[in-house]
Amino acid sequence: MSDTNETIGIDDLPIREELKGQSPYGAPQLDVPVQLNTNENPYPLPEPLVARIAERVAEAARGLNRYPDRDAVELRTELARYLTRTGGHPVALENVWAANGSNEVLQQLLQTFGGPGRTAIGFEPSYSMHALIARGTGTGWISGPRNEDFTIDVEAAEAAVAEHAPDVVFITSPNNPTGTAVEAEVVERLYTAAQAARPSLVVVDEAYVEFSHRDSLLPLLEGRPHLVVSRTMSKAFGAAGLRLGYLAAHPAVVDAVQLVRLPYHLSAVTQATALAALEHTDTLLGYVEQLKAERDRLVAELRAAGYEVTDSDANFVQFGHFPDAHEAWQSILDRGVLVRDNGVPGWLRVTAGTPDENDAFLDAVRELKKEQDA
Amino acid sequence: MSDTNETIGIDDLPIREELKGQSPYGAPQLDVPVQLNTNENPYPLPEPLVARIAERVAEAARGLNRYPDRDAVELRTELARYLTRTGGHPVALENVWAANGSNEVLQQLLQTFGGPGRTAIGFEPSYSMHALIARGTGTGWISGPRNEDFTIDVEAAEAAVAEHAPDVVFITSPNNPTGTAVEAEVVERLYTAAQAARPSLVVVDEAYVEFSHRDSLLPLLEGRPHLVVSRTMSKAFGAAGLRLGYLAAHPAVVDAVQLVRLPYHLSAVTQATALAALEHTDTLLGYVEQLKAERDRLVAELRAAGYEVTDSDANFVQFGHFPDAHEAWQSILDRGVLVRDNGVPGWLRVTAGTPDENDAFLDAVRELKKEQDA
Repeated sequence: MSDTNETIGIDDLPIREELKGQSPYGAPQLDVPVQLNTNENPYPLPEPLVARIAERVAEAARGLNRYPDRDAVELRTELARYLTRTGGHPVALENVWAANGSNEVLQQLLQTFGGPGRTAIGFEPSYSMHALIARGTGTGWISGPRNEDFTIDVEAAEAAVAEHAPDVVFITSPNNPTGTAVEAEVVERLYTAAQAARPSLVVVDEAYVEFSHRDSLLPLLEGRPHLVVSRTMSKAFGAAGLRLGYLAAHPAVVDAVQLVRLPYHLSAVTQATALAALEHTDTLLGYVEQLKAERDRLVAELRAAGYEVTDSDANFVQFGHFPDAHEAWQSILDRGVLVRDNGVPGWLRVTAGTPDENDAFLDAVRELKKEQDA
Repeated sequence: MSDTNETIGIDDLPIREELKGQSPYGAPQLDVPVQLNTNENPYPLPEPLVARIAERVAEAARGLNRYPDRDAVELRTELARYLTRTGGHPVALENVWAANGSNEVLQQLLQTFGGPGRTAIGFEPSYSMHALIARGTGTGWISGPRNEDFTIDVEAAEAAVAEHAPDVVFITSPNNPTGTAVEAEVVERLYTAAQAARPSLVVVDEAYVEFSHRDSLLPLLEGRPHLVVSRTMSKAFGAAGLRLGYLAAHPAVVDAVQLVRLPYHLSAVTQATALAALEHTDTLLGYVEQLKAERDRLVAELRAAGYEVTDSDANFVQFGHFPDAHEAWQSILDRGVLVRDNGVPGWLRVTAGTPDENDAFLDAVRELKKEQDA
């Protein structure tokens, strides 16, 4: 099609003004021996689970000419069972919704409760997709405050909620990229403030909660119909490639997102694969225990090496403080280890990998420290 | 979670005003022996393909702990090869984009080229998701005209485009639910009108094109950087359960949608399954030939039975004319055959099924005709 490929760039097209000059979101994918930059689970799925996925997908493929179960009833039932078992709070089918990654869950929530003429707030630095999905759905974005230690400054956050009366409030626990989980009391107070101000939908993003020292905030759903807890199978279930996110909330919220979800959004192969993975929950949560131990080792060794480290409840660790984080990122990369520069001035983020990967990372940062101290 | 399930409905939540009182989109799913209501392909995937899907998905599952290829390079390359081979126009990787169903492709286009403060036009009756996805992305919707025989009234359509200067123009060919393909000249004229008025993005929705008597409109991409052709694997590839839609366009359009696509939107299992299906293209296109013959038989037999039938280039047929289409729908359902009432006054739509299913349908409508004539 060479003739039509004349030199026309994105900004020559009649795209929306606010998209002009933007770049697509995504971590750089570099070919490096040790990749600890996207918070992936380093443990491949066990072979019995791979075999079970093949079996369930083959079963689904025999009916692939038909549309999938639009309501994903079996999958949502199993997700509810998992949350009930592990989250400290009983959850049923009608409380659960699933989509292609928690990003799609959040997009559907913003299409329903945010959108043009409405606003959402997050306390930054936090998961940068919250702001990007807000932009993608026409929702105004408000950057709320944090303490210097990256915990939420509750009084300042309450004041920001009162001042801006946002339609959606994001609370990320454990927070990404900083790592610390949020106390239940903080969510309670911000929920109360948000209801007084608007009322708003409060979304607790628990993508990393299985790695936390704290319990899930799921029990807070009790008596809070405008609270949503979002989850993902990307991290604890070692299934980033599956793209399966879900939420728990009041049944009315689950009904509401169905007004904007694309019909048959969740494919039969995705549903089959997720169901297979849920059959192997105990094995996968065993890997989570190993990763928690490795995460704690990273925190301890980084501190022993003289780095500042933010308390971590996730499968990653924020460390610093660097005069120039990007330069430090490059030095670590030059030693064969890819970590993430999330744009938090002075800080970098490393994902907990296998013991060998973590050793390689620790060697690299110990060398860097010696170099800097020299 | 009974305590929090107090009686709160969707409209009690702080959802967007325009969503209040709405219902989720979707055909009623009834348990009926012969289901000819959602334009599914009645032929299950052949067993060798099912085995190949299991094999490729198992391979993908071994790396499922990692994020999928964000750019789906292998899949887009194979889709480009398929289009080049069958579409009468050379298309390369950089011209192709894929997402979870053509609905998601269209949603990404509207997020990029439509959205708040912008409008899109379709010529109705047509695929109702165009208007719904417009609403979901905050894009204003304009209902354009058609002739009484459901072809596009080109002059009226040109006038509507000139009057409203929409940002996005949808042309569905073959049209759903009416069935007829659009002549290339109609697209050429509307593209010209749309460029004069705005310039706008013109989207040709070719979901059913493999069933058409006419060639694909893909060659029109030549020299038209604001033209997009969208496709799906749901129909011709017999893979409605897979949710794989794609588009061909100028590379700048492909770059532009990446500004709004959710990162890693297309799962590794979806990519693996689609690649397996593309390996079996020839077999699947063989089923398409059978369905075209059955579709032509439905048209002929319906006319022989005294029905009016809209010319069909799709895997479905629009038939009537009924004084009360919904009553006719119910009478056919009472005879064990589920067809679709798309809300076009006086008309119903039947999907071409297997020969046996089509016989059952034809028996039902012949009986209905006798009853009505009696």
